[in-house]
Amino acid sequence: MPRPSLHETAAFAKLQSLVASAPDLRQPETLNAGRIAAMKSSAVGFDLLFATQRVDNQILGALQSLADETEAVAQMRQIMAGEVMNRIEGFDCENRQVMHHAMRNVFADLARPELDGESEPLIAAAREELARLEAFLEALDSGKITNAKGETFTDMVNIGIGGSDLGPKAIYLALKAYAPAGHRAHFVSNVDPDDANEVLAGLDLSRTLVNVVSKSGSTLETLTNEELVASRFRQAGLDPAKHFVCVTGKGSPMDNPAKYLRAFYMYDSIGGRYSVSSMVGGVILGFGLGLDNFRQFLRGMRKMDLNALETDSRRNLSLLAALLGIWNRDFLAIPTLAVLPYSQALSRFAAHLQQCDMESNGKRIDRRGRAVPFATGPIVWGEPGTNGQHAFYQLIHQSETVVACDFIGFRESQRGADLQVKGSSSQEKLLANLLAQSLALASGKSSDNPNKQFPGNRPNSLLIGRQLTPESMGTLLAFYENKISFQGLIWNINSFDQEGVQLGKVLANEILDALTGKAAANPATAALIEAAGLK
Amino acid sequence: MPRPSLHETAAFAKLQSLVASAPDLRQPETLNAGRIAAMKSSAVGFDLLFATQRVDNQILGALQSLADETEAVAQMRQIMAGEVMNRIEGFDCENRQVMHHAMRNVFADLARPELDGESEPLIAAAREELARLEAFLEALDSGKITNAKGETFTDMVNIGIGGSDLGPKAIYLALKAYAPAGHRAHFVSNVDPDDANEVLAGLDLSRTLVNVVSKSGSTLETLTNEELVASRFRQAGLDPAKHFVCVTGKGSPMDNPAKYLRAFYMYDSIGGRYSVSSMVGGVILGFGLGLDNFRQFLRGMRKMDLNALETDSRRNLSLLAALLGIWNRDFLAIPTLAVLPYSQALSRFAAHLQQCDMESNGKRIDRRGRAVPFATGPIVWGEPGTNGQHAFYQLIHQSETVVACDFIGFRESQRGADLQVKGSSSQEKLLANLLAQSLALASGKSSDNPNKQFPGNRPNSLLIGRQLTPESMGTLLAFYENKISFQGLIWNINSFDQEGVQLGKVLANEILDALTGKAAANPATAALIEAAGLK
Repeated sequence: MPRPSLHETAAFAKLQSLVASAPDLRQPETLNAGRIAAMKSSAVGFDLLFATQRVDNQILGALQSLADETEAVAQMRQIMAGEVMNRIEGFDCENRQVMHHAMRNVFADLARPELDGESEPLIAAAREELARLEAFLEALDSGKITNAKGETFTDMVNIGIGGSDLGPKAIYLALKAYAPAGHRAHFVSNVDPDDANEVLAGLDLSRTLVNVVSKSGSTLETLTNEELVASRFRQAGLDPAKHFVCVTGKGSPMDNPAKYLRAFYMYDSIGGRYSVSSMVGGVILGFGLGLDNFRQFLRGMRKMDLNALETDSRRNLSLLAALLGIWNRDFLAIPTLAVLPYSQALSRFAAHLQQCDMESNGKRIDRRGRAVPFATGPIVWGEPGTNGQHAFYQLIHQSETVVACDFIGFRESQRGADLQVKGSSSQEKLLANLLAQSLALASGKSSDNPNKQFPGNRPNSLLIGRQLTPESMGTLLAFYENKISFQGLIWNINSFDQEGVQLGKVLANEILDALTGKAAANPATAALIEAAGLK
Repeated sequence: MPRPSLHETAAFAKLQSLVASAPDLRQPETLNAGRIAAMKSSAVGFDLLFATQRVDNQILGALQSLADETEAVAQMRQIMAGEVMNRIEGFDCENRQVMHHAMRNVFADLARPELDGESEPLIAAAREELARLEAFLEALDSGKITNAKGETFTDMVNIGIGGSDLGPKAIYLALKAYAPAGHRAHFVSNVDPDDANEVLAGLDLSRTLVNVVSKSGSTLETLTNEELVASRFRQAGLDPAKHFVCVTGKGSPMDNPAKYLRAFYMYDSIGGRYSVSSMVGGVILGFGLGLDNFRQFLRGMRKMDLNALETDSRRNLSLLAALLGIWNRDFLAIPTLAVLPYSQALSRFAAHLQQCDMESNGKRIDRRGRAVPFATGPIVWGEPGTNGQHAFYQLIHQSETVVACDFIGFRESQRGADLQVKGSSSQEKLLANLLAQSLALASGKSSDNPNKQFPGNRPNSLLIGRQLTPESMGTLLAFYENKISFQGLIWNINSFDQEGVQLGKVLANEILDALTGKAAANPATAALIEAAGLK
């Protein structure tokens, strides 16, 4: 059933009419204590504070109407129930289910079978793969599977790119504090040969496993790096088949038991950027963090998935965030979103979200093949605070270019070890800065010196949890995954394909043929190769 | 002497009139072999290919006029000659010289004393600090300075934030392939206590040096981390004064010989984001990469600084890039710039440039204290290719939001080790992708399937060098530093202060006082602290 795009809803016109009267956060009577207390939604261990967004109850009401008119939550149910939601009506497209939610729908106490619909086979498959992974990891731990000398494995190198790299790496770094002793994970992604060579330089290959991840089994960068790494194993007198495992689609060119210790499976209906809850995350995180921690991570995701089915946006955190984001993007015309976690462990989380968001919603065609007349996904970027405060925050505070900000923080540090310096702990300093930045962007500051004026009125949210643990990490990631999906559903774009990567691939192959003398390039391409000094 | 701001020049109106006729890169007759060969400028080992920018000779001519009218190169000479260029006329401001160029003006064969002017004392100081650093590193190598057991030091932990962290870390990662055996560098920056604890977890403190970097000697995060790390040394029975060195301003609270093995100096006239060529980069890179490599890095910078004095923008790479960036930002209204290095070693280079650019040019007040009526510094972000191709490139290719792109590549890999897979090497695949993306963004592609259309006409540049070496890394960094300065000079903003960081600091102290019970917060702040669950 075709659904309205954003601009076809009654709420769109209503929201446009409300832009002129959007609250001015610089007025102390606006950003008052009552507003700050009231504009808070809490679920699954997180508090979303949004008094520093430029919304009021009327705007929030119109945003809720927008969600209702576009049936955003009903569509999320359709996704979770396994309907074919990766499609564009009337045009050739992937035409697939969108099944990443099934990968974490594996907990009896969190089951909602009445909602599962067509997703049941994938839920069963997810359980089966988790059981296979558990058996494999136990065989490693118990010494049933060892290297040729009978030693256990200490390291695993993940070879993948895009979704098979960014998500698992971001989560590994986020949760490294919980890693069992004696297990380390490493990541090789770039086809740049310096990447693999740098990672391998520090490893004892004889005690290293390699996890090769490619859904299609044909990703050029990954296969190239696999070959490069395998040749190093052979040079060291080691048999890659005794050290390599893979994660791939059933029946892909990589699904070859002779080449791998084990093959774990992922599925066509799971996009790479949403695959961290599948075996794509499972194998490397199960080894690197322990399977219990990976299961806790999945639990956190499942809990937030269930929260995404609430119809009231004040109870549904990812829907609320999606609507606030649409308000900023389409009505306040803010082109970018900075994700600013006040947690060093989340150092690569913004990079993963950058992929997840921009690859999902960097689209200009709606689900009926029509060009959309409104802005879609923002440019997402960010670095941890307080570091960013000493870097790019200058622009956020004092440029005319307004940047929407998502601040993320935790009341407790991960590792505990802390110290009182000048009467406060590091964690207190970190949190004071987090709150201060949110307030400073909103309130601004006047001054007789124009160079010391802060324009203010800059929208931002604060998302706060107790502590970054495996479970809360899962919750946080699912919050963003579902937020991105809600935005795509409301914009009526297909968030689940990625046709934008195709043209570059075709042209790269033409240029590669020219570089290696297999075929002549057209005159412009030949001129470029020559100008670049490659001929 | 007051200079015109961008909109006050004759070239501004001329450029505005040329927007409508800016070349359409989708037309094969536009992006032809002749254009590609002609639109190339080369200097100091780099080729800047800009046929894929939306400029023609008329636009380039007007951009040159813009540089001439604003006396951009003459102003760059003033900077290098030590005039007080960090100032805003008529208002309280830092009122300083801008002396980072002096830090690399230390080579007899690259000397241009007639240009040095007031910078001579800083040039002499830079030479002196380099000599002191050399003596210190030699004392470490020769075993004259050891730990209490007489062992040499193997690791150095850099404690700094912002400019005292991002630049040195980005360059260390970029050049790690050239590091001498047995020397490793590490970086602690965030006040989040998990950051220091994570770095220290892997180290033998008895063989570790710590380099504490703060120009003012009072950076909260850095002093806090210093205390935290020092307490760990004491717990391990080690004397911090025998393991710690510092880089700070002469006479700062940190300039205390009793506390440090050595104090190295930096200067008020060097902004943190431009300080990597000072001892801020020198100590950690000299230890981690070897002093010869650091000197080569400075040589590369110096060569590019000299190139920045060419008045013809076709010969002056950083001026040309600055003008192309202004064309994209102010005339084509593109809000962001993606920096996309096809080199995994440059994994943190975009993060450093993000700081350097956004902290310098994220301003809305000109050098006479007037609000500027045009856009200034873009939002700068990026990740290495080919990785990004599997992530955010979807948006770059198919969203309506146009992103300007700087592609960076090298004809040869750093580490050499490479492998032929499917008839081509990894390096060839990397370069084929680099060229392909530039072409694909420019040319676009039509299709009967709207979801497979690529709008094209998206401006980008290619910057290509032979190999990423210490010297070319320096050249590349100085290229961007000088590009950023040229843009600030043409916009007539002060690129060298950072008032935008102040308000957050003030508010953070207020909140910290409330969190630790030292003082009551105002009602709104108190409500925020409560809403965040911190009370």
